[in-house]
Amino acid sequence: MTPPHVRDSVELSDYQAVRDDTERLAAPLSAEDQMIQSMPDVSPTKWHRAHITWFFETFLLVPNLPGYEVFDAEFGYFFNSYYETVGERQPRHERGFLSRPSNDQVTAYRAHVDEAMVRLIDTGVGDRRDLADLVRLGLHHEQQHQELLLMDIKHVLSKNAFRPAYHPRPDMASTPPGPHNWVEFDGGLIDIGYEGNDFHFDNEGPRHSVYMQPFEVADRLVTCGDWLQFMADGGYHEPIHWLSEGWATITRENWDAPMYWEPSETGWMVQTLHGLQPVDPNEPVAHISYYEADAYARWAGARLPTEFEWEHAAVDVELTGNLASSSVLHPLTVQSPSNGTPRQMIGDLWEWTSSSYAPYPGFETAPGAVGEYNGKFMVNQYVLRGGCCATPPGHIRATYRNFFPAHSRWMFSGLRLAR
Amino acid sequence: MTPPHVRDSVELSDYQAVRDDTERLAAPLSAEDQMIQSMPDVSPTKWHRAHITWFFETFLLVPNLPGYEVFDAEFGYFFNSYYETVGERQPRHERGFLSRPSNDQVTAYRAHVDEAMVRLIDTGVGDRRDLADLVRLGLHHEQQHQELLLMDIKHVLSKNAFRPAYHPRPDMASTPPGPHNWVEFDGGLIDIGYEGNDFHFDNEGPRHSVYMQPFEVADRLVTCGDWLQFMADGGYHEPIHWLSEGWATITRENWDAPMYWEPSETGWMVQTLHGLQPVDPNEPVAHISYYEADAYARWAGARLPTEFEWEHAAVDVELTGNLASSSVLHPLTVQSPSNGTPRQMIGDLWEWTSSSYAPYPGFETAPGAVGEYNGKFMVNQYVLRGGCCATPPGHIRATYRNFFPAHSRWMFSGLRLAR
Amino acid sequence: MTPPHVRDSVELSDYQAVRDDTERLAAPLSAEDQMIQSMPDVSPTKWHRAHITWFFETFLLVPNLPGYEVFDAEFGYFFNSYYETVGERQPRHERGFLSRPSNDQVTAYRAHVDEAMVRLIDTGVGDRRDLADLVRLGLHHEQQHQELLLMDIKHVLSKNAFRPAYHPRPDMASTPPGPHNWVEFDGGLIDIGYEGNDFHFDNEGPRHSVYMQPFEVADRLVTCGDWLQFMADGGYHEPIHWLSEGWATITRENWDAPMYWEPSETGWMVQTLHGLQPVDPNEPVAHISYYEADAYARWAGARLPTEFEWEHAAVDVELTGNLASSSVLHPLTVQSPSNGTPRQMIGDLWEWTSSSYAPYPGFETAPGAVGEYNGKFMVNQYVLRGGCCATPPGHIRATYRNFFPAHSRWMFSGLRLAR
Amino acid sequence: MTPPHVRDSVELSDYQAVRDDTERLAAPLSAEDQMIQSMPDVSPTKWHRAHITWFFETFLLVPNLPGYEVFDAEFGYFFNSYYETVGERQPRHERGFLSRPSNDQVTAYRAHVDEAMVRLIDTGVGDRRDLADLVRLGLHHEQQHQELLLMDIKHVLSKNAFRPAYHPRPDMASTPPGPHNWVEFDGGLIDIGYEGNDFHFDNEGPRHSVYMQPFEVADRLVTCGDWLQFMADGGYHEPIHWLSEGWATITRENWDAPMYWEPSETGWMVQTLHGLQPVDPNEPVAHISYYEADAYARWAGARLPTEFEWEHAAVDVELTGNLASSSVLHPLTVQSPSNGTPRQMIGDLWEWTSSSYAPYPGFETAPGAVGEYNGKFMVNQYVLRGGCCATPPGHIRATYRNFFPAHSRWMFSGLRLAR
Repeated sequence: MTPPHVRDSVELSDYQAVRDDTERLAAPLSAEDQMIQSMPDVSPTKWHRAHITWFFETFLLVPNLPGYEVFDAEFGYFFNSYYETVGERQPRHERGFLSRPSNDQVTAYRAHVDEAMVRLIDTGVGDRRDLADLVRLGLHHEQQHQELLLMDIKHVLSKNAFRPAYHPRPDMASTPPGPHNWVEFDGGLIDIGYEGNDFHFDNEGPRHSVYMQPFEVADRLVTCGDWLQFMADGGYHEPIHWLSEGWATITRENWDAPMYWEPSETGWMVQTLHGLQPVDPNEPVAHISYYEADAYARWAGARLPTEFEWEHAAVDVELTGNLASSSVLHPLTVQSPSNGTPRQMIGDLWEWTSSSYAPYPGFETAPGAVGEYNGKFMVNQYVLRGGCCATPPGHIRATYRNFFPAHSRWMFSGLRLAR
Repeated sequence: MTPPHVRDSVELSDYQAVRDDTERLAAPLSAEDQMIQSMPDVSPTKWHRAHITWFFETFLLVPNLPGYEVFDAEFGYFFNSYYETVGERQPRHERGFLSRPSNDQVTAYRAHVDEAMVRLIDTGVGDRRDLADLVRLGLHHEQQHQELLLMDIKHVLSKNAFRPAYHPRPDMASTPPGPHNWVEFDGGLIDIGYEGNDFHFDNEGPRHSVYMQPFEVADRLVTCGDWLQFMADGGYHEPIHWLSEGWATITRENWDAPMYWEPSETGWMVQTLHGLQPVDPNEPVAHISYYEADAYARWAGARLPTEFEWEHAAVDVELTGNLASSSVLHPLTVQSPSNGTPRQMIGDLWEWTSSSYAPYPGFETAPGAVGEYNGKFMVNQYVLRGGCCATPPGHIRATYRNFFPAHSRWMFSGLRLAR
Repeated sequence: MTPPHVRDSVELSDYQAVRDDTERLAAPLSAEDQMIQSMPDVSPTKWHRAHITWFFETFLLVPNLPGYEVFDAEFGYFFNSYYETVGERQPRHERGFLSRPSNDQVTAYRAHVDEAMVRLIDTGVGDRRDLADLVRLGLHHEQQHQELLLMDIKHVLSKNAFRPAYHPRPDMASTPPGPHNWVEFDGGLIDIGYEGNDFHFDNEGPRHSVYMQPFEVADRLVTCGDWLQFMADGGYHEPIHWLSEGWATITRENWDAPMYWEPSETGWMVQTLHGLQPVDPNEPVAHISYYEADAYARWAGARLPTEFEWEHAAVDVELTGNLASSSVLHPLTVQSPSNGTPRQMIGDLWEWTSSSYAPYPGFETAPGAVGEYNGKFMVNQYVLRGGCCATPPGHIRATYRNFFPAHSRWMFSGLRLAR
Repeated sequence: MTPPHVRDSVELSDYQAVRDDTERLAAPLSAEDQMIQSMPDVSPTKWHRAHITWFFETFLLVPNLPGYEVFDAEFGYFFNSYYETVGERQPRHERGFLSRPSNDQVTAYRAHVDEAMVRLIDTGVGDRRDLADLVRLGLHHEQQHQELLLMDIKHVLSKNAFRPAYHPRPDMASTPPGPHNWVEFDGGLIDIGYEGNDFHFDNEGPRHSVYMQPFEVADRLVTCGDWLQFMADGGYHEPIHWLSEGWATITRENWDAPMYWEPSETGWMVQTLHGLQPVDPNEPVAHISYYEADAYARWAGARLPTEFEWEHAAVDVELTGNLASSSVLHPLTVQSPSNGTPRQMIGDLWEWTSSSYAPYPGFETAPGAVGEYNGKFMVNQYVLRGGCCATPPGHIRATYRNFFPAHSRWMFSGLRLAR
C-alpha cells in the first residue's frame, strides 16, 4: 500500500505496545496449540507471530538498518504470506506442517527483530517520514493479525471434540437490546473515505463523493433471539429467501444455523473463546456468511446497507465499543439504551454490507511489494464495517474496510438491517 | 421480474418472428447435436428450445387461456430452469441425459404452445396490459436463450476433436482497427438506468443518479493483436498483473491464452462457429475471463470501466453493430474509422466492467416465480455491457446489464480500456 | 490376447448372427438414446456399435484385406477404447459428446465394414487359422459389448426421472426359490482353467492345478427376500459386517439398498429394463457391489466362494440359464426344483467371488495391441463368474472370468454363499 | 485377532523393552514435530505413542485390573484408531488437530498405563494365558506402530522445505550388489503360513497347502542403479509397461521417479531420515508403488513373486537383516556375496508381491473389538513381505504379511523379480 501521510513520527512505546499485545494474546497457548492449521483459511498462531515479524525484517530492517543480520535466511520462505514479488514461499495450506522453526525459535526471532527495530526507531526514523510510515503500517498489519490470531485459534479449538476454552468466561451478564428502531438519513452527495492525517489503509481513499438516496438503518445489530425466529420460521429451508449461490452453499454444506452453533438436549449451544456456552438471545448473532445475512434481511423485509450508507451512519459515532481485551472476547454487550442514533456500530461485530470490495475512484497501488497489500484481493469479496470484539483498540475507524468472500463465517461477522 | 410498462400491445408478428428465429438458429443442428451438455454451464439446444416454450406455457397459457391442455405434464420437470417456486426439476448438470423427450417431441411441443399462444394473443391480450407485458418478457427471455444457444453450441462443437463448424465462414475480410484513441467524459451527477416506455429488464432500473469522476474510455476494443503483445510480454506468467484469485485460477487451469485458442505449427488458431481459424490480429479478442481482462488492463496501465462509465459513454451511440444474423457469428468487424466517439460499443462483444452485479437503489423483485428472474443472481458476478455478435438484433440497449462470474469465458466477452 | 487355438474356421453365418444381434439390441433405441453417457463407466450405445466395428476394421481389414479403404480416418480417434499402442483417442469420459459422427453414419460404418468382412471371410480366412481366430475374438468382443450395451442403457434410462422402459415386461411370474441348501465338495488338487479347442479368452488359461480345502456352496442365489431381511436387521447400519473400505463407501455414497432400488409408498421398487417394478422377493438380488456381497455373507455367517471353488462347483452344470433374449432381460427365474446340485449357476447373475483378478500361472500377454486386451486390468478388480440374463447365449462358460472393481454395481451382479 | 497360542508367559522385561523402544524413537522429535499429520495416511508421533497405550488400557487394564482408574476418559475418543465396536473417535484425517492432549500429557499417560501394566503383569498374567497373549499382541501392535512412526515422520519432515534430518547419517558406505542371479525352486504342494508356538498374527494362519509351479526368484533386490536404467529407457513414459490403473495414476500424479526422489543440478537426490542424500545406485530402490514395481518387472521381462513363492523362498533364510536401530534407518546394505540363495530377504525393504491380501482358507476373525484387527482390510490391498530397515528386530518372520493399497509409496517398499 501507499504508506499514507501520518501526523508525526512513530514512538518507540507504540511499537512495543503492539508487539507486546501479540505476545499477550499468544500467552494462553502452548507451542502445540500454536501450530495447528485447522482449515486452509486458518494460519497457526506461531505463523502469525513470525509473519508479522518477517514484515518488519523484510521491509524495514534489511533495506534500512546498516549491518543488520537476517535472523535465519530460511524464514523468508516460511513466513512470507502472499508477496509474489518477494519470492517463493511455504504453500498456504501447509502452514500447519511447520514444526521447525519451533515456537522457541519464533520467540527468539521476535526478540532479534525487536532489538534491531528499537535501534532503527531510535536512530533512523526520526528524520525519515517514509520509514515512520512504514513502521506504522507494520504495526497496523500486526494488529490485523492479532484479530486473525483470535479468529483462527477459535476455529482451531473448535475442532477439538471437547471444545477447550481459550480464556475463562468473564463474569458479565447480557441485557436485552430493546426494541428495534430505524434511524433515518437524508441522501445527497456525500463524501466517503478517510480524511485526516492519522494512519489509514490505502483502500480507505481517495476520499470522494457518492450520491445516495435517503435511507434508514436499524439502531442495533440483529440478535441471536432474532435469528432463532428466522430459524423457527424455516429460514434455512425456504429457497425464496436466498441468493441462488447461497442456497447452493447451505444445501451442499448442510448449514442450518450460524457457524459454531450446535444443538444439545437443552437447546442451541455455541462454541466461543470461553468454551461451549448456551446461545444468548440478547447477544448479536455472529459467524454468519454474507449469504445468511442477505437471506435474513430479505426474510425481514429489509436489506443490507451499502458500505457508503454504513459509513455515513457511523461517521459521528463514538469509537467506544466492545473491543478486544484479555477478558472480553465475545460480542457480549451490555446495551446502552436506544437514543435515536445507531448503537453497536464500532467494536461489536463486523457488519456485512451489500458492497462488493472495489477500489475507490483514483485508487492506485504502491510500487513494489507493499503494493500487493490490498489491491489484489478486489474481486469476489464483500465489505464489512465496524470492527469487532476481537479487533484491537485503536485499530478501527468509521472508514475502515474489511472484506471476506460471501461464504466465509469464521470471522466475527454480524448484520444490521437497512431499508 | 416486474413486467415493465410497455408502450403498446404485443403484436402477433413479433411473437412469431422471435419464435422463428430460434428455429432458424437450431436448423443446422441434428437431433444428436441438440442433446449435448459439454459442461455444467452449457445447456443442450433442445433444452433451450423446450425451456423457453415452457415459460410461455407455465406463465401465460396455464393461468390465462381457458381450456388450455398442457402438452405433457412431465415437461414441467424437465424444462424448468431454476424457478424454485414452481417445483422440482431436472438437475442442472444432467440436462444432457434427456434423450426423451425427443427432439421431435420438442418440436411438437413448440407447435402446440405456439398454436395456443396465437389464440391467446388474438383474443386475450388486447385488453390486458399485464399479459402483453408477460408475453414480451417471454420473447426477450427467448432472445436471451438464442444467444445462450449459440454460446453453448460453440462449446459443444469445440469438444469434438475435429472441430466441426456450426456455419460456414462468410466471405468477409477484417480491416485494421487503427490507432487506439481515448475519448474523454466529464464527471458529475449522471442519470443511470432505463428511461422510456419500451421493454427493459427489471434490473435496468430504477433510474437513479450516480456521481462520477471525469474519465476516459478507449474508442475501440482490445484486439487479438494487442493480446498477442500481452502474451509475448509474459502476461500470463507474471503474477504482478493479476488479481490473487485470477492468478490462482490461471495456474490451476493452465490458461495461457483466451478460451478456444490453440497453438499450431503455423501460429495460434481459434475455434469459432465457423470451425478452426487462424487468430486474426484485427479482430477484438474474445472469450476472456474477468481475471484476464483485469490483468490486461493493469498491464496496459489502464483499468476496466465501471458499468456506469460504460453506460454514460454508450448512451448516444447508435445501436448498429455486428449483431447476430445467420451469416455472421463472429466479432469480425469491418471498422468504421475513428471519429472521436467510442466505436464497437454495441453488438460486437460483451465488455467486462469492473462493477459487481448489484441491485440499483430501490430495486425490488416482483412477487411470485417471475421474481426469481434476476435478483437471486446478484452476488459474485460482474457486469458486462453492450451485447455481442451473437445477440439478437433488437435485444440490446445501452442500459442492458449482462452478468457472469469472474472465471467464465464461454460467452462472447471482450474488453475496452478506461482510465 | 493370444488368439486361442479354435477348432475350425469361422463361418460367415456366425459373423452375421452376432452382428445382427447387436443391431437387434439397439433397435428399440433412438439416435438420441444411443448418445448418452450417464456416468464415466457408461458408454453410449452408438459408441459400442462403432467401437466393435472399429475392432474388425483395425485388426482384420486394414492389415489383411488388400485394397480395403478405411471408412473414415477420424473414426480411429473416436472409437478406440483403450489401446494405447494404436494412438490417441477420445477421452473416456467424453464419449457422450459425440453427436458427430451421427448414428446414421455409424450404421453406414457397420455396413461398410460388414461388406468387407464378408469378402475377407469368404476369401481369405479359410486358409488362415490366425485370421479365423482373430475374427472369432472380434465376435466374442462384440458379444461382451452387447452385454455392456444393456448394462449401460439400463443406467442411461434410470437417469430419466420418469424411468422409461427399454422393453415391455414379459408375461412371466416368479416362483419361490425354496429352501437354501448347501452342496458339499471335496477338496484336493483340482484342475482349473479352460480345456478344449473352442474359443476362450486368454485369461482363462493356462489350465493349472489348485489345491483346495473341502467346501460347500449354496444351491441357489441370494434373493431379494433374503436381502430385505438383511436390511431389516440393520445390515447397512452396522459396521461390524463391513470391510473398512466398504463401510467408508456406503457412508460416503449414502447407500442403503442395492442399486436401482428406490422406496415408494407401497414398498421398495426397482428400476429394470422393463421400467420401474415392485421388488420381487423370489428374484435373485442384483446390482450389488463386492462390499455389499461380502457384508451380506458375513452377516449370514458365511463367505463368498473363491473363483476356483465356483468353477469346480460349476464344471458339470449344464449351460442353460436365463440368458439374454429379446423378451427376458431380467433375472426372473422360474425355479427348477432343488436337486442336490447348485442351481442358477449360469446365465442368471454374475456371482461375486472373493478372488482378486490375477493372471493364472504362466499367463502371458500377446504381442501388439491385442495384448492389451485383458492383462492390464489385473489389479484392484474382483472376479465374477457365471454370466447373467444380459449375457448373449453362447458367450458363457464355467471357466469364463469377468471382473469389476469392488464398488461397481451397474452390472448384473449377485451372490451365492459359500462356507 | 485371535490371540494365538504363545509358548510361555509374557516377561515384564519384554514389555518394558518394547515400550522403551518407542520412546527412544520419539526422542529426537520435539512436541511440535510430534503433532503433524502431513497427509491423511500419516499419524502424528504423539498420536502413535498414545494410541498404542490406549490399546493396553482398553483391552488389558480396564477389563482385567481391579481398581484401575482410566487416565482420562476423553482419551478413548482421541486415540481409538478404527475399532468401530469401541465407539466414536477422532476423525482419521484430523489427528493433526490435537494440540490437547499435549505431548507431556501423553508422556504422563504412558507412565500411568505402564505403572498399571507392571502391576497387571506382575500379579495377574502368570495364571492367565489369554492375558499373556493379549499383552504380547499389544507389544507387537506397538512394534507395528514403531515402524509407522518412522514412515510417518519421514513424510512429515519431507514436507519441510529445508528437509531436516531425523537422525544423522551413519558413517557407512554401500558396496555394489554384484550381478543379478536367479535362484530356482521346485514347485509342488507346499505348506504356507505360520507353524510353531511363538507369537504371530491371525492373518498368518491357518497353515495350509498351496500348489505351486516351479519358479525362480532373483537373489537380490532391484537397486537404484537398475531403476535409473528403467527411467533412462523411458519407463515412466511408455504405457505398454503399465497396468491401466497404474498409468492413470502416474499421469494424474505426475510421477516420474520413486517417492522422495527429486532432481538437482548434480543428479537425482533422495529425501531420507538422514536428510537429502544423493541417490546411491548400490542401494535397493525404495518407496515405490505396486504399480511401479509391476511396471518395472514387466519392462525387465519378469514379474513379481506371489506371496507364496516369496514365503517358500524365504523360509530357510536367516532372520538377520538391516533392521531398525538408532543408527541405521536406511536400506543401505553392505552386501553379503551372492551364494546361490536369495539375499536381502529380511529387514531391508518390504517386497511387493503380486498377491492380493485375502484370508487363508479357514481364517476366522476373533469375536469383539480385537476381531477388527486384520480382517476388515482384506480388499484392494497387496501383500508385502520381509520387513524393512525400519522394522523392529524381533518383529519379522518369513510368514509375516504386510499389506498396502497399490498406490501407496510412503512405506519402505521395494521389489525383487521372479519368473
